[in-house]
Formats: sequence, structure tokens, C-alpha cells
Amino acid sequence: MPAIAFEDLTPGLIIQLGEIVIDKDEMLDFAERFDPQPFHLDEAAGAASVLGGLCASGWYTSSLWMRSYVDHVLAGSTSQGSPGCSELLWPKPVFPGDVLRSELEVISARRSKSRERLGLVEITGRAYRGAEVVMRTTFVGMFGTREP
Amino acid sequence: MPAIAFEDLTPGLIIQLGEIVIDKDEMLDFAERFDPQPFHLDEAAGAASVLGGLCASGWYTSSLWMRSYVDHVLAGSTSQGSPGCSELLWPKPVFPGDVLRSELEVISARRSKSRERLGLVEITGRAYRGAEVVMRTTFVGMFGTREP
Repeated sequence: MPAIAFEDLTPGLIIQLGEIVIDKDEMLDFAERFDPQPFHLDEAAGAASVLGGLCASGWYTSSLWMRSYVDHVLAGSTSQGSPGCSELLWPKPVFPGDVLRSELEVISARRSKSRERLGLVEITGRAYRGAEVVMRTTFVGMFGTREP
Repeated sequence: MPAIAFEDLTPGLIIQLGEIVIDKDEMLDFAERFDPQPFHLDEAAGAASVLGGLCASGWYTSSLWMRSYVDHVLAGSTSQGSPGCSELLWPKPVFPGDVLRSELEVISARRSKSRERLGLVEITGRAYRGAEVVMRTTFVGMFGTREP
């Protein structure tokens, strides 16, 4: 049995997920493939935009947060995926070289009514640059239960 | 002036964004980097999960939808990015070889109170496999206005 099951994810629990470093080359590769808007690809276009500089696609920041969540929680868990997010916010632009601190907080947890041995855990994930939240998402994670 | 500005994105407008093809190799590369959960990497683990098979990370499907949105709308627009999504749902798993139809619908539009010549457009994006919605997101897009 993995170390983390539904029963371990209790409301109020906060788990630190380590640091995310925004690598400029990978940030640009991601933008070229998935979000080739000028302010994600070009310094001058970024500076001329309301974002204030060449900045990461929110999908890149979110994908990096996901990786930190897998490394610190899901890899040793009974995770069965997620049906989605009730919010995914990018309150501040993220720039090359930024170092973000990543964490999650368990908001609520209940057993599935339709599936045995499955629990639904509502989680808020955040990425911080210093004291500033640059990404926040609230989603439901599906986790196998330890007890029948 | 780009072809699409705030004024063009009126509530009720639906724009077709073409097809998304789920390439297995790229799907696996994305999962290895950003979402290395067993059911996103391995056939047997996928089959054993509640997802029913090796399937795409929702972040991969969402990133592909973003690319279709850039290609069909944002590239020729006054887009100034997005502060985030009020929902991002993955109601059904997405599998290698799936061909998804992508579209958006404008839900509401208003001018920014705090920034001149900027409008906020609420948009719902969907990806369909046949008649089935496999991804839905509602978000705010910021667009420059054509008129002062």
C-alpha cells in the first residue's frame, strides 16, 4: 500500500512541495509548442504588454506545480487522477529565473458515494514568489482508501 | 491593428478551433516531465486505474486546447493574457489517437474599470470527442479595445 491514502489527507493539512525554478529555455520551448503568444516568446513584446515582461505561460507554471505535487505527494499515494479544478488563477506574471515555493492545503475530504474504496479530496495548491501568490488552483483529487 | 479586438468578442459568439490529435509519443513525453503518474505512463497501470487505460494528463489536453486557441484566435488578436480560469474540467479521460474537436463560446464581455483600452472577456472552451465533452474550461481573457 502506498504511503499516502485518502485517510491521510485530512482538512487543514498543509504539505510543502519544494521549489520550482523557472528555466528560460524550457519556458520558451513550452510557449512555442503550446502557447505561442508574443509576450511568452519575446522580450520586447513582453515589455510592451500589460504583463510587463517576457513571462511564462500560465499552463507552464501550472504544469510545473503539478510535477512538484507528483514528486512530493502523488508518487507515493493511492492517487486515481482528478476530474478538474474549480479555480486556476495566475494573479501575477512569472518570469525566467523566478524561484517559486510550492505547497498544497487540504480543504475537504469525503468518500465517494458511487465508487467503493475511493475518496474525493478538495485541495488548494499555491505557488509563491516570496510572499506573493503567483498561481493558485483548487481541484478535486481522487484517492484510493486504506480501509474498505 | 490585429483582426480580433475586444469589440469582436460578443456574448454568444462561438468560434471553431479545429482538431486536436493526441499523439502518444508527445503525450508520454509531457507526462514524464510534468505529470509522471503511472496511469499517464504505462498501459497496465492505466488499465488498472479508475481511468480505464493509459491516458493523457489533463494538463497536456489543456495545453493542446490552448494551442488551438492561439492558432485560431489569439495570434491575430489584441490578447493581453489571462488572469485565470473559474473552471477547468476533465470529465472523461483522453487516450492516445483521440481526435478532439475544439471550440470556444463567448459568455460575457466588459471593459476594464482600472485599465484604459482593455476589455475582459469571459470565455468557455470545450474539447469534444464525438458528442462527448472531454475538457471544459471557463476563463477570462484580456483584450485590447479597438476604440478608445
